[in-house]
Amino acid sequence: MAPPLQLHDPQRRGFGSDNQSGVHPEILEAIATANGGHVGAYGEDPYTERLQSVIASRFGEGAEAFPVLTGTGGNVIALQSMIPRWGAVLCSASAHVNTDENGAVESVAGIKLLPIASDDGKLSPELIHDQSWRWGSVHRGEPLAITITQTTELGTAYTADEIAAVAEYAHSHGMGLHIDGARLSNAAAHLGLSLKELTMDVGADTVSFGGTKNGLLFGEAIVSLTPGSLHGFSHLRKADMQLASKMRFISAQLIALLEGDLWLRSAGHANAMATRLADGVRGMPGVEVTQKVEGNAVFAILPPGVFEKLRQVAYFDEWNEFTHEVRWVCSFDTTEADVDAFVAALGELLK
Amino acid sequence: MAPPLQLHDPQRRGFGSDNQSGVHPEILEAIATANGGHVGAYGEDPYTERLQSVIASRFGEGAEAFPVLTGTGGNVIALQSMIPRWGAVLCSASAHVNTDENGAVESVAGIKLLPIASDDGKLSPELIHDQSWRWGSVHRGEPLAITITQTTELGTAYTADEIAAVAEYAHSHGMGLHIDGARLSNAAAHLGLSLKELTMDVGADTVSFGGTKNGLLFGEAIVSLTPGSLHGFSHLRKADMQLASKMRFISAQLIALLEGDLWLRSAGHANAMATRLADGVRGMPGVEVTQKVEGNAVFAILPPGVFEKLRQVAYFDEWNEFTHEVRWVCSFDTTEADVDAFVAALGELLK
Amino acid sequence: MAPPLQLHDPQRRGFGSDNQSGVHPEILEAIATANGGHVGAYGEDPYTERLQSVIASRFGEGAEAFPVLTGTGGNVIALQSMIPRWGAVLCSASAHVNTDENGAVESVAGIKLLPIASDDGKLSPELIHDQSWRWGSVHRGEPLAITITQTTELGTAYTADEIAAVAEYAHSHGMGLHIDGARLSNAAAHLGLSLKELTMDVGADTVSFGGTKNGLLFGEAIVSLTPGSLHGFSHLRKADMQLASKMRFISAQLIALLEGDLWLRSAGHANAMATRLADGVRGMPGVEVTQKVEGNAVFAILPPGVFEKLRQVAYFDEWNEFTHEVRWVCSFDTTEADVDAFVAALGELLK
Amino acid sequence: MAPPLQLHDPQRRGFGSDNQSGVHPEILEAIATANGGHVGAYGEDPYTERLQSVIASRFGEGAEAFPVLTGTGGNVIALQSMIPRWGAVLCSASAHVNTDENGAVESVAGIKLLPIASDDGKLSPELIHDQSWRWGSVHRGEPLAITITQTTELGTAYTADEIAAVAEYAHSHGMGLHIDGARLSNAAAHLGLSLKELTMDVGADTVSFGGTKNGLLFGEAIVSLTPGSLHGFSHLRKADMQLASKMRFISAQLIALLEGDLWLRSAGHANAMATRLADGVRGMPGVEVTQKVEGNAVFAILPPGVFEKLRQVAYFDEWNEFTHEVRWVCSFDTTEADVDAFVAALGELLK
Repeated sequence: MAPPLQLHDPQRRGFGSDNQSGVHPEILEAIATANGGHVGAYGEDPYTERLQSVIASRFGEGAEAFPVLTGTGGNVIALQSMIPRWGAVLCSASAHVNTDENGAVESVAGIKLLPIASDDGKLSPELIHDQSWRWGSVHRGEPLAITITQTTELGTAYTADEIAAVAEYAHSHGMGLHIDGARLSNAAAHLGLSLKELTMDVGADTVSFGGTKNGLLFGEAIVSLTPGSLHGFSHLRKADMQLASKMRFISAQLIALLEGDLWLRSAGHANAMATRLADGVRGMPGVEVTQKVEGNAVFAILPPGVFEKLRQVAYFDEWNEFTHEVRWVCSFDTTEADVDAFVAALGELLK
Repeated sequence: MAPPLQLHDPQRRGFGSDNQSGVHPEILEAIATANGGHVGAYGEDPYTERLQSVIASRFGEGAEAFPVLTGTGGNVIALQSMIPRWGAVLCSASAHVNTDENGAVESVAGIKLLPIASDDGKLSPELIHDQSWRWGSVHRGEPLAITITQTTELGTAYTADEIAAVAEYAHSHGMGLHIDGARLSNAAAHLGLSLKELTMDVGADTVSFGGTKNGLLFGEAIVSLTPGSLHGFSHLRKADMQLASKMRFISAQLIALLEGDLWLRSAGHANAMATRLADGVRGMPGVEVTQKVEGNAVFAILPPGVFEKLRQVAYFDEWNEFTHEVRWVCSFDTTEADVDAFVAALGELLK
Repeated sequence: MAPPLQLHDPQRRGFGSDNQSGVHPEILEAIATANGGHVGAYGEDPYTERLQSVIASRFGEGAEAFPVLTGTGGNVIALQSMIPRWGAVLCSASAHVNTDENGAVESVAGIKLLPIASDDGKLSPELIHDQSWRWGSVHRGEPLAITITQTTELGTAYTADEIAAVAEYAHSHGMGLHIDGARLSNAAAHLGLSLKELTMDVGADTVSFGGTKNGLLFGEAIVSLTPGSLHGFSHLRKADMQLASKMRFISAQLIALLEGDLWLRSAGHANAMATRLADGVRGMPGVEVTQKVEGNAVFAILPPGVFEKLRQVAYFDEWNEFTHEVRWVCSFDTTEADVDAFVAALGELLK
Repeated sequence: MAPPLQLHDPQRRGFGSDNQSGVHPEILEAIATANGGHVGAYGEDPYTERLQSVIASRFGEGAEAFPVLTGTGGNVIALQSMIPRWGAVLCSASAHVNTDENGAVESVAGIKLLPIASDDGKLSPELIHDQSWRWGSVHRGEPLAITITQTTELGTAYTADEIAAVAEYAHSHGMGLHIDGARLSNAAAHLGLSLKELTMDVGADTVSFGGTKNGLLFGEAIVSLTPGSLHGFSHLRKADMQLASKMRFISAQLIALLEGDLWLRSAGHANAMATRLADGVRGMPGVEVTQKVEGNAVFAILPPGVFEKLRQVAYFDEWNEFTHEVRWVCSFDTTEADVDAFVAALGELLK
């Protein structure tokens, strides 16, 4: 048997997205260690059992974890578990669930989203208030949950106080609060707070905790912070096709991520690279960094004609086809040299 | 950093299911080889590109592959892609899609199943005919596709001729034919036929080709055999939450499985272990092997009182709570010693 | 302004279905009486309020009515209100919800049906038991409700004891019992029982009470018999597009049907006509009445070649394209002369 | 048998909504004329057949009509028929389908709406353009249809040119154009244009033509203007529970509405009453009419404390709980005296 062929250049990295990177070596080692022998499928295994205590240690006493396969799956099933069939969900207009999941929450869960415009991607009680009406009526879908993204799709981070304010608004109006935490670790690293301080302590009910964008092969964990907040989750996870048969391998990865400090090391490093990148380009002629850099992403507007040329140096995406804003995302494996070379190349192009 | 903890006994194997086993070492090696660097997410990577030619070499010219995360996902999206919103799908009453997917095809895809009773799990034109009516009416869902399982949930295998007959019936009545091939490799190994001979050559339109039950970490491939048979698949795969961001790792596994003979080696070995097991217990007092062993599973009825004791030797499941039939499934890593010890233990218990 | 043109022959009646007849004159009078002026829309009107006490007088203390537009709507929303998102529903294979609603319950409500074969269309605890399994698992949809049809699609009627037995089975297994009562009045007339004796008194939780097939212009009432059995019904009725804005006209019809004895007069008359028809044809050479006549429908097998000729006398449908069984349905406006002429015509054809 | 009881005051009218009024006498007469005898159910009747030519005479050669039960049903099934499973639909944020249908389009059809803020409820190519992006991607739902409301929920009317501009934008971007015409007759009356001039001539593909709000008992017609624009409509109408068994009574009403000038008489009268009302209150101290009156509705802001008192004179609703705007809707049966008394009462209250 010939060894498997490598079809890509393992030294080539870009700024396209943190899911264009691969698997952290420690995660791959955890998979190998969990391999061999037979264990119960569909979560009846010792890794998934152990994950519960790891999650509780990170998110707080009583937190429960439900591993799923994709971030979209996590968001959809979490929201579906939080509200009755007829409920609607308030979100930022730029939320992943609204713009990047191909209508999954509508088509799979039948949920109506009530999107709210926000310049920095964040929601506040004031913004939410405008769309919070018609409870007790059968005509508009009742707003019964709020979902926020941490860090946001625009690279900004909610402070703990900002989340607490949204949670208080939610609960005082009979709504639950879900956090799409695909990059929650990046927010925690930026703010210097624990995952618990950013979720359970400030009143969130459920979290989709992201693994794939922080060095996992695949796998996310839906975390219930409030008892009973995820009604029927196990049934819905199966019916929504997010129940992994060999779940031990998701759980083992999540344990490896969370038991030690890998989650924080990786996220903190990616954040630092993003800051380095933003610092490097800020002030260059015609370059405008458009959002605060509070995670691992940088948003910028480039002078005309630069986009295609710079993309030949390292891959990245146009974010907004109207404003021609671009997005640069750093990853656990982005190096200082990667950033510096990219900054230098942009500098050259602008000469 | 401490190395990851192993929480299970990698030498302990049972007969519960082929998804209770782990990952074949060659597959894990393929994952490691595909790691490192950045590649396009969501299938824009060289592994997914290469997979197309590997699939075409195995399933025939023109076959196209769409990697998905789970077998349920593969079945649901394949069927959803094959029929319009109002179509119904004929299946065996014992089909996985009918009994083991928690209504995913109904709740996610809104598809009505028309289940057909079958003693050995197989469908025939005669059985299908009874449920094939009301085309052109808006009252009953029009039957617009047939799905069969190979090998069936009862461990039996369709011959190529049997599939051809079903395909002919399907096409002559305006229906498409889908094969749930979670264990297609086992059927091919049993029959001594290529994957192409069991699918494209006999008229199947689409296949859910199983990887997880044949030694993959996770991952299946939906294969289109007839041009245009999977209408809108890419959109539906995303909307149905089965689009892996780091798809390179599914594709690399599938390449490792299919490019050489790993698919056949693993399946053939599992089949041989099942035959060895059936041969070992057949004729024991009170033991009745209830289905033909044409894949990697053995179905049997045990004398009263034996089930719980035998399960302490090695894990397996009761299949039917009414008949008290049990199911024993062998895997790529089941050893002759595993089988012989299990047979011997049953012999002891029956003394 | 010219008067409206009549495009059909108001003296021509057939045996096709009780929804091919029009509106009972007393019902039309009730509509006219409810007309004029403005009242609250969507059920905020005095007719819908009054309907509640009429329903309670017929179905028992505590019964609540929710008017809907169609029988399919009634069945789907009732079942959807009775079970969580992941539940499955047991039904007879010949049930309207399974064979005549184009997959509405699957596509609108995402519910999985578990159909059970039954020769006379009725379910019994024994038949139900075979499909009642896998509670507590996430793999098969949990059976959480049973729906039965009264009278059945095959014209047979459950006795009160038979329903009580099904209800007891349902409740002792944690399931709710729904009655599709599109022709419940016909069953009550046949059995000489009140609506309450056939529903609340024997343990049914919810009923879709049929109006359209018993002389209404349109309109059905979903009736909750057990407090809380229709969770979120009002929201789901709107989201499922069954909330009539001018609901006063459905409620006024239902009041006119149920406040006096119109429901019983009409159903009893239709039943008598069916019995007269069955009595007339039974014993004719080659004619076999295939089901007991316990409502307003007669099922029969005719000698070859007779179907098309007899249909020129009065319209009716082939019921089963395999057995060539036909169905004759009588209505509130079927006359003895209609029946006698039809019977005579068949007699002539058989000479 | 006692005559039916009248439970409401047929002389009491308000300004709550045009669906709080009853049935126009000519419509009731049409129902009575279509009554009696048996005709084919589910649209197989001479009234539904005749309706086709009536619709073609009003909307243009080739227009086809599909009667449905409710406006929500019409909108949802029309949109569902126009796009594949994964498509998204652009609409005004104030559109009925977005704010008043309890998520029906999301939960029944699985469609994602892309709402666009608009001060007067109207969309323009400029407004649409901002949300028109990401075709060819699987990440965001592809915008594949636009729906506009005529007259809008804010009482304004699109001119023919404005619709033509939206239609051109739609078609040049591969999208279809649907008009929610619950009050299309009011727009036509306001603009002095035929239904054809406002729909087929300006490029609309499909229309939900409203009957209930213009004097029907119940019933709307989905109209296909472009061949093939409503893919699978008949199947979806049944599966979505909007297929009336006694369809002759919807069709007969629509014929009575459209064959002569009843549609225009009723709509024109309601419009005139709204204009009279707006003219009456405009200029009163503290009263601001907030939208152009281009149909049968008036939007106004009242001085504090007036709302509850004025509502005792005649019923109407608060439209916006943030701005305290109110809505007054006139109907086919609103009289000049109704308007004058209401205006006078408001004048009194403001003194």
